[in-house]
Amino acid sequence: MSTTLGQNTSVGEPHAAVTPEKIIQIGLGFWGSKTLLSSVELGIFTHLAQGPMSCEELARAAGVHPRGSRDFFDALVALGMLNRHAGHYSNTHESNIFLDKNKPSYIGGVLEMANSRLYPQWGSLTEGLRTGKHQNEAKGTDDGFNTLYSDPQRLRTFLSAMTGISLPPAIAIARKFPWNKYQTFVDVGTAQGGLPTQVVLAHEHVTGKGFDLPIVQPIFEDYVHSFGLQKRLSFEAGNFFEDPLPEADVIVMGHILHDWNLEEKMMLLSKAVKALPRGGSLIVYEALIDDDRRHNAFGLLMSLNMLIETPGGFDYTGADCCGWMKKVGFSESYVEHLVGPDSMVVGVK
Amino acid sequence: MSTTLGQNTSVGEPHAAVTPEKIIQIGLGFWGSKTLLSSVELGIFTHLAQGPMSCEELARAAGVHPRGSRDFFDALVALGMLNRHAGHYSNTHESNIFLDKNKPSYIGGVLEMANSRLYPQWGSLTEGLRTGKHQNEAKGTDDGFNTLYSDPQRLRTFLSAMTGISLPPAIAIARKFPWNKYQTFVDVGTAQGGLPTQVVLAHEHVTGKGFDLPIVQPIFEDYVHSFGLQKRLSFEAGNFFEDPLPEADVIVMGHILHDWNLEEKMMLLSKAVKALPRGGSLIVYEALIDDDRRHNAFGLLMSLNMLIETPGGFDYTGADCCGWMKKVGFSESYVEHLVGPDSMVVGVK
Repeated sequence: MSTTLGQNTSVGEPHAAVTPEKIIQIGLGFWGSKTLLSSVELGIFTHLAQGPMSCEELARAAGVHPRGSRDFFDALVALGMLNRHAGHYSNTHESNIFLDKNKPSYIGGVLEMANSRLYPQWGSLTEGLRTGKHQNEAKGTDDGFNTLYSDPQRLRTFLSAMTGISLPPAIAIARKFPWNKYQTFVDVGTAQGGLPTQVVLAHEHVTGKGFDLPIVQPIFEDYVHSFGLQKRLSFEAGNFFEDPLPEADVIVMGHILHDWNLEEKMMLLSKAVKALPRGGSLIVYEALIDDDRRHNAFGLLMSLNMLIETPGGFDYTGADCCGWMKKVGFSESYVEHLVGPDSMVVGVK
Repeated sequence: MSTTLGQNTSVGEPHAAVTPEKIIQIGLGFWGSKTLLSSVELGIFTHLAQGPMSCEELARAAGVHPRGSRDFFDALVALGMLNRHAGHYSNTHESNIFLDKNKPSYIGGVLEMANSRLYPQWGSLTEGLRTGKHQNEAKGTDDGFNTLYSDPQRLRTFLSAMTGISLPPAIAIARKFPWNKYQTFVDVGTAQGGLPTQVVLAHEHVTGKGFDLPIVQPIFEDYVHSFGLQKRLSFEAGNFFEDPLPEADVIVMGHILHDWNLEEKMMLLSKAVKALPRGGSLIVYEALIDDDRRHNAFGLLMSLNMLIETPGGFDYTGADCCGWMKKVGFSESYVEHLVGPDSMVVGVK
């Protein structure tokens, strides 16, 4: 049997150099993914933030049965989520910062939500693709958000998840956007206030508002108080379908537009242009799909997540968004990469 | 905010250079995984084996609703599973060989099984870790295999899945093992006969047997006949818990030992040593865990899959297996890497 790539590709004997390894790795990739999600659910990283533990100590602390404990913890080592030295497990630098529930830098909320809601809902992806209908708790009803917001515990988990996914781009926006030119901003659909917090931490001259549904107010205020920023950040209750947006020098919409259909997206962009002064800016940030729609797998999969989670939402490219901004009256716009899969589109009125 | 790695790692403000990107990518990795599984279920690659198609043509052929079709197909492009040129989608070299259902090289059975059974069962991973109990269809009863084998359609899917996962290492074993020293072999737990087929295709002097439960015989014979190999490969019905193993120069056990607990593993190894002549060889192949249990994530996750799927199964290292072989009477043994996550342990009597 030859070993030269591309020589024998007859279908009966797949060539040794053309292997299905990548196919199998992606197809069974949910194993590693679900292992990390379960480890967050079981508090592995929060326990290890206290110090290194043996297999038996960690299993006892986290309530893991002896049968799978060693494979489970060693799989987390192989996935780069834990260290192991001399038989004792410890957090990696990243897992210690981001997955210890007792630290304000915890971003595990997004993984808790992925574990409890998205993983089972994505089990119906095929049905979603066949029907074009969302597959979440509100399956068969009109609006996923009503269902999501009706359960206070589910709402807290969701809002904390949104902070988890927004914190890295929020930190990048605090650094990359020209805040020195502006005094005030409003974050539309602010959730806990992850972005406003990062912006005012980095820029002492700026004050901001979080805009969201009334039910979100106490959750926002808890979060902002935990940073001692209540003098520079306030909450304005409202509904961006029924009310105008609050006026400010800068308006931010992070992971908001992708929740809605095209008509709703255009309505939100129109409201933003109305609420800005001449020279004011709208910052839209998302896991933007690359303009050629072939590189940012995460952005494309996020759009499928919107298929699963919302009646009409979808993700889009930077070029799509610049086109919409032009239509509603922004005079210029540009796209800038933030971090990981996230980029921002800035529209100037 | 500084941009130098490792300088500001205080927990309140995660440093820009220390990002949770890898955590999020692994935690949401089930998105890409499930997207590939659904694409196999919808026959995307089988349709495209006929020739390139536009988005609309492919969506119509596969029964995909317009809402998600373009994101779905472009996500498969970004995952490296499809090509796209001038608005037309086509299979990659690998997906054309391995994911077209009409080719004998199809290995999608393992992904069909992952989609219909493993994905939902892994949703109970946390419960499996807490209790040490399997979480498959037989949850609460004694033996996953009885349940699996009781439904003929489920059995065919399972056996075809086993061929999918065994074909690449089987091809490597046909090439790497010194078959010139031996005349006969038996493949224990042969399923469709994926390994025996590859061995006799590569070595004209060798004849072999597939050994498995009686219900497997027609499925084995269909597969072997499709290669015209019925004169050199026969089926022997039996139960490796109740019967001795058939005698042969070489015995093969691929992805068999990991299904069983330690006592059952030792019993199977003992039966193998009894069935071999002096100088005969046992080949055990699995996604062996590396001896240091920190590199082969796939092998460790496969062991968690055994937690989900079986009452007592687990994967193991090459050193573990060599130790067991010595205990039951093999005079020497060695480990050799095959392909991807798979390695073989060869024991010589």
